[in-house]
Amino acid sequence: MMEKENSIFADRIKNLGTETAFLVAAKAAAHAAAGNTVYPFHLGDLDLKTPENIIEATYRAMLAGKTGYNPNAGIPELRQALADEFNKTRKTSYSLKNVSVQPGGKPVIAKFLRAFMNPGDEVLYPNPGFPIYESLIRFHGGVAVPYGIVPSEGNYTFDIDGLEKSITPRTQLLIVNDLHNPTSAECSKEERGKLAEIAVRHNLMVLLDEAYFDIRYEGRSASLVSESGMAERSVILYTFSKRFAMTGWRIGAALGPERVMDIISTMNVNEESCTNHFIQYGALEALTGDQEQVKENLEILRKRRDLCVEMLNSITGVSCYRPHATFYVYPDVSEAMYNKGFSEYEPFLDAVLKNTGVSMCARTHFGSLLPGETGKNLRLAYSGIDLSRIEEGLNRLKHYLER
Amino acid sequence: MMEKENSIFADRIKNLGTETAFLVAAKAAAHAAAGNTVYPFHLGDLDLKTPENIIEATYRAMLAGKTGYNPNAGIPELRQALADEFNKTRKTSYSLKNVSVQPGGKPVIAKFLRAFMNPGDEVLYPNPGFPIYESLIRFHGGVAVPYGIVPSEGNYTFDIDGLEKSITPRTQLLIVNDLHNPTSAECSKEERGKLAEIAVRHNLMVLLDEAYFDIRYEGRSASLVSESGMAERSVILYTFSKRFAMTGWRIGAALGPERVMDIISTMNVNEESCTNHFIQYGALEALTGDQEQVKENLEILRKRRDLCVEMLNSITGVSCYRPHATFYVYPDVSEAMYNKGFSEYEPFLDAVLKNTGVSMCARTHFGSLLPGETGKNLRLAYSGIDLSRIEEGLNRLKHYLER
Repeated sequence: MMEKENSIFADRIKNLGTETAFLVAAKAAAHAAAGNTVYPFHLGDLDLKTPENIIEATYRAMLAGKTGYNPNAGIPELRQALADEFNKTRKTSYSLKNVSVQPGGKPVIAKFLRAFMNPGDEVLYPNPGFPIYESLIRFHGGVAVPYGIVPSEGNYTFDIDGLEKSITPRTQLLIVNDLHNPTSAECSKEERGKLAEIAVRHNLMVLLDEAYFDIRYEGRSASLVSESGMAERSVILYTFSKRFAMTGWRIGAALGPERVMDIISTMNVNEESCTNHFIQYGALEALTGDQEQVKENLEILRKRRDLCVEMLNSITGVSCYRPHATFYVYPDVSEAMYNKGFSEYEPFLDAVLKNTGVSMCARTHFGSLLPGETGKNLRLAYSGIDLSRIEEGLNRLKHYLER
Repeated sequence: MMEKENSIFADRIKNLGTETAFLVAAKAAAHAAAGNTVYPFHLGDLDLKTPENIIEATYRAMLAGKTGYNPNAGIPELRQALADEFNKTRKTSYSLKNVSVQPGGKPVIAKFLRAFMNPGDEVLYPNPGFPIYESLIRFHGGVAVPYGIVPSEGNYTFDIDGLEKSITPRTQLLIVNDLHNPTSAECSKEERGKLAEIAVRHNLMVLLDEAYFDIRYEGRSASLVSESGMAERSVILYTFSKRFAMTGWRIGAALGPERVMDIISTMNVNEESCTNHFIQYGALEALTGDQEQVKENLEILRKRRDLCVEMLNSITGVSCYRPHATFYVYPDVSEAMYNKGFSEYEPFLDAVLKNTGVSMCARTHFGSLLPGETGKNLRLAYSGIDLSRIEEGLNRLKHYLER
């Protein structure tokens, strides 16, 4: 290879993180390859099918020749449908100019940071949280400042006081993942008001990652963008992935002020030209077409949630909130780990996998521990495992943990 | 809107360029909307259909449930097929580990620069050339250093001596677009040897944009990666867009050293998760399936080239090389512009559009003029206009220019 071996890559590559959950997936795959049954609670993917009407609309668009370039910001029909959807569900007053179609949700995080963050700027992000926030902040030269997502009454919640205390004159941006991965935390109306008030007072631009807004079993999701002063400072990450079982399609959108969307779409000119043309017709069908299979998929997820929560709470030393949204549960397993003699996550996960086949992520896959954090948590996704295997896997887990 | 109106965006946004050719497209659209016939020679898109077998393979994959996440680097079958293709056509010895599937060709440019370029590093890029190189170099804090693509015997060629003279201790990267947009320039065997020798001697990492490698009417395309010392320092941009009439599909790949592909795929984890799953089966069919329609499309383009070159050369004051590859011609129109009393491109293009309906790009859409550059050139793409409209449009152009 080359002579300047150690310096071949740019400095920023040192700061490039990843999703360490992929290592869990690799261990699970190795365990399965050795002939063992694996219970895949580690995946954020869905084992449910994309609704047929979406597939057929996409195929029709391919046949109709929607195979050439399309506008950088996406086809106007899809942009309008997204604006309509948001105006209905988030009380915005968006037009299609407030929408930029993207090849997934993650591109919105990257483009938001590139649009607004100078090197050295501080960005507030949730911890535990989706690990890509911290990775992309650091990769682009920013300073990643975590705020806590902490246990509270009935569910996890945002440590808003801690968040506000972390604000300095260098703080420019705030990332909010209301309906939160991995804890399913969601803000109350009062908390949304408080967060908005802080964002306005400190003049922060805000990324609202609303990937799980529509994966909801009771009540109604609400968005920070509906709060006073937020529409002009929010960029919303919308994705078709979870709601319509379209994870592998790679389609999402950024929504926000028109001049911000113009910049984001100009980044698309540079980095992608545009999002795949014909799948946008599938996405349009997803938003405006028949919702039967979408509802069925949600019912399936609800039953899985109920079973997971019930079974986890039946295990000695495990306690688990019952979230109203997302497809994750985030049980506290402090006692169970202690009982089994484990103080570290990795040997514990390895032992569980080896003894039961249950594969899960741990709190540490979602960021470093908070100061003073002592509880032990796992994240189980029930999006990629059916009821019978949930039952079998969690029975094995119970048996192992109580042995 | 917000108070810090002028500073809302990060500093790098000042350096974000675009494809100014879109402005040409906008003017053409306005002219058409006013009821006029437009002859679209400005587009880099194809009006040819994606081959049916590719569409059907994609649909089958959707039906087979290839709608969930897939590996960050792409499905192994497609990576292997691309490695095989390169080993056959470029004398590489790639395995699938040397391939990272990407949502288009442009993501390879962006990721190459993010992987290797520190702020302040100098990057050599072709001028005239694809405007995204300069835009992305500057956006990421690099110094864009142009080298000339200049008229020579029988075609345009690379100013390799000029390129070498521009090298300084800060030069880190070289971008090569052999089979070049907009001039169709291609290196001779000797020139490829010289370029490789320079890259090795100065220890440059090289991006080989080979988007037009397979849009070839006579002879055989060759790649710089086949030269001694180049495999370990080259990242190749491959795209399905042109060869298979798949511009709107957004699928391409980076090929290069394994450890570089690992970094690039980790960027995919961060920025896109992965490329659309089911269209990778379409791309696999494109590479390994029936080639009949691909050959037909190439024959159509060849006839268009022949007609364009012949008709352009029949116009007084216009002279045009006959390129062996790409779907662009880049005639010298210095005399014709002088004869019509124009010294600037924009009023000339406006007058041509108004008087004839012919819409084209000019040299200035592909970078600033080189020192001492006096010739006037246009770029006509014949990828999006059929034979009869080529004939009609260029007849009108001839009539106007000779009037």
